Amino acid sequence: MRNDVNRQWVLKSRPSGAIQTDTFEWRQGKIPTPTDGEILVRNLWLSFDPTQRGWLNDVKSYVPPVAIGEPMRAAAVGQVIESNRADFKPGDLVRGTFGWQDYIATNGTGIIPVTKLPPGLAPNTALSILGTTGLTAYFGMLDIGGPKPGDVVVVSGAAGATGSVAGQIAKIKGARTVIGIAGGREKCSWLTREAHFDAAIDYKAEDVARRLDELAPGGMNVYFDNVGGEILEQCLARLAMRARVVLCGRISSGYGVDTFNMPGPRNYLALILFSARMEGFIVLNYMARFPEAAAQLMQWVRSGQIAYREDIAEGLEKAPETLRGLFTGANFGKQLLKIADPPLPIA
Amino acid sequence: MRNDVNRQWVLKSRPSGAIQTDTFEWRQGKIPTPTDGEILVRNLWLSFDPTQRGWLNDVKSYVPPVAIGEPMRAAAVGQVIESNRADFKPGDLVRGTFGWQDYIATNGTGIIPVTKLPPGLAPNTALSILGTTGLTAYFGMLDIGGPKPGDVVVVSGAAGATGSVAGQIAKIKGARTVIGIAGGREKCSWLTREAHFDAAIDYKAEDVARRLDELAPGGMNVYFDNVGGEILEQCLARLAMRARVVLCGRISSGYGVDTFNMPGPRNYLALILFSARMEGFIVLNYMARFPEAAAQLMQWVRSGQIAYREDIAEGLEKAPETLRGLFTGANFGKQLLKIADPPLPIA
Repeated sequence: MRNDVNRQWVLKSRPSGAIQTDTFEWRQGKIPTPTDGEILVRNLWLSFDPTQRGWLNDVKSYVPPVAIGEPMRAAAVGQVIESNRADFKPGDLVRGTFGWQDYIATNGTGIIPVTKLPPGLAPNTALSILGTTGLTAYFGMLDIGGPKPGDVVVVSGAAGATGSVAGQIAKIKGARTVIGIAGGREKCSWLTREAHFDAAIDYKAEDVARRLDELAPGGMNVYFDNVGGEILEQCLARLAMRARVVLCGRISSGYGVDTFNMPGPRNYLALILFSARMEGFIVLNYMARFPEAAAQLMQWVRSGQIAYREDIAEGLEKAPETLRGLFTGANFGKQLLKIADPPLPIA
Repeated sequence: MRNDVNRQWVLKSRPSGAIQTDTFEWRQGKIPTPTDGEILVRNLWLSFDPTQRGWLNDVKSYVPPVAIGEPMRAAAVGQVIESNRADFKPGDLVRGTFGWQDYIATNGTGIIPVTKLPPGLAPNTALSILGTTGLTAYFGMLDIGGPKPGDVVVVSGAAGATGSVAGQIAKIKGARTVIGIAGGREKCSWLTREAHFDAAIDYKAEDVARRLDELAPGGMNVYFDNVGGEILEQCLARLAMRARVVLCGRISSGYGVDTFNMPGPRNYLALILFSARMEGFIVLNYMARFPEAAAQLMQWVRSGQIAYREDIAEGLEKAPETLRGLFTGANFGKQLLKIADPPLPIA
């Protein structure tokens, strides 16, 4: 159903830490009219990723910050409503950086260019296991972590959209023991019962250091870090020789303006003791290989080797609180938000 | 000249921070008698390396700690006085981990096995450019840093035994700009006038961050870190994409018992932004390649492509204060201590 208005969440003021009630402003305006070479897209699903919080900081980063007054930036799946392009037609499901709004007129360029979804691919799947979080797990674990048969692999943020996939990829590649660190019994149970992890540590209820000593007495060959803070230090202290630490994020920092001004790992010299390395990456570096990764991930999902979860919110009005929830551990699996069902028959 | 006694510095009490007057005890005892399969070595030169301070901490590390009551461990060059082995004869100059004492009876094993010096190689040279500090520069820069033609390379602790060699190796490998960070005008002047560095930053007198911005506006491709602390953070903030940070040491920590419990780099997530890696290593990993490295280093010294400096103390009694001086920036180049001249004609 086509709304009469274009509802938007625009950035009103930059938060220093967690998102506040005055961070975004709710606006209703006219539905844009696509000009030559543009398509009009109706937004259907939004992707929520911790990195989005970082886009609100006025700092130099791997993408420019969201500007004040601009709709919040977010990956999304929408449907083409009108098209002034030969390569898109009304009804097409498309993925792009459409942001927190009902409608967008776009020429198809952007941080990630607009692409059509392969026939039969559900919009939510396109944003979860095949979204940037799943792709981040793929390239981070395979290219940076490089798990070898027999390896011990530890993943923090393990029940999240990236961590859960990263751990399962290590298992597929022959890791002997894959250990997930997550918050709460439900998430830990899912990791070992559904997501092929060999063990899970509930950091909210267990002594992480002691459990790591029990589960990985010889140290870990790969540590995939989504959280930073104490857990990073506990893992650095327990590396195996020539271990690889995949730096994927530091969600414990909240990605506020102080993210680059908080205490770093006190024992980073463990990298010397263990002749180990710690390496970061940006998934956008791998854009040329996204199709390869998506095909492989879908094959692993179909063969039952990768399980994944989606946590689905509904209603554009809930976008700010949904983003905020990523930093309190409220979500379980890939956080999505459904705005609307396709208004047109799918082409 | 053969002493009547064996003078030793033995570990008396473990310091928490800097070496204290009661850390070592001066002892005089009998000259040991070599048993079957042993040689008796008269120590001539001692090597001083920051890592030796770390051996005094009672912690698990890449080598066991020096035990209380044991002579301080140190690499040295000595001369064989008596031999109960076919492969060594009196007069041979040998390198080994002989420690802070006049005499040692050894079967030739140890952290680094005892080896004869190649004919014509001076004992001090064997411990400076061809000592573990020079070898550390070789493997750290070539294997971990991997400088490529056109790269911008920054080295901290640049006037030290490792840093000075590391920077010159980067230059030999085609680095466009090699920048050294060192303390004091004299060291900086030596770097650019003698040691082939393109630029030097005096961290005691200059604003390191601003100078790095001027000298490396596009960021650095390799950062060889000997110091840690603020300089590490300033360099992490100025990496080029896919940069390599070679973790060699953290002399600013003093290598006391708190070395693994001091603030780490607050901006380590720069490794994500720049898709960069930080990697540590232990030179002992490369023991099989020491001959290759030594031959290459000597060739570069002979061709004038590598300059190096030695800072020579004299007298075994000065060993504790000489080690202490490494952490105050007192030394300039490789710190050695001469105990004695060869007592026998060299074989």
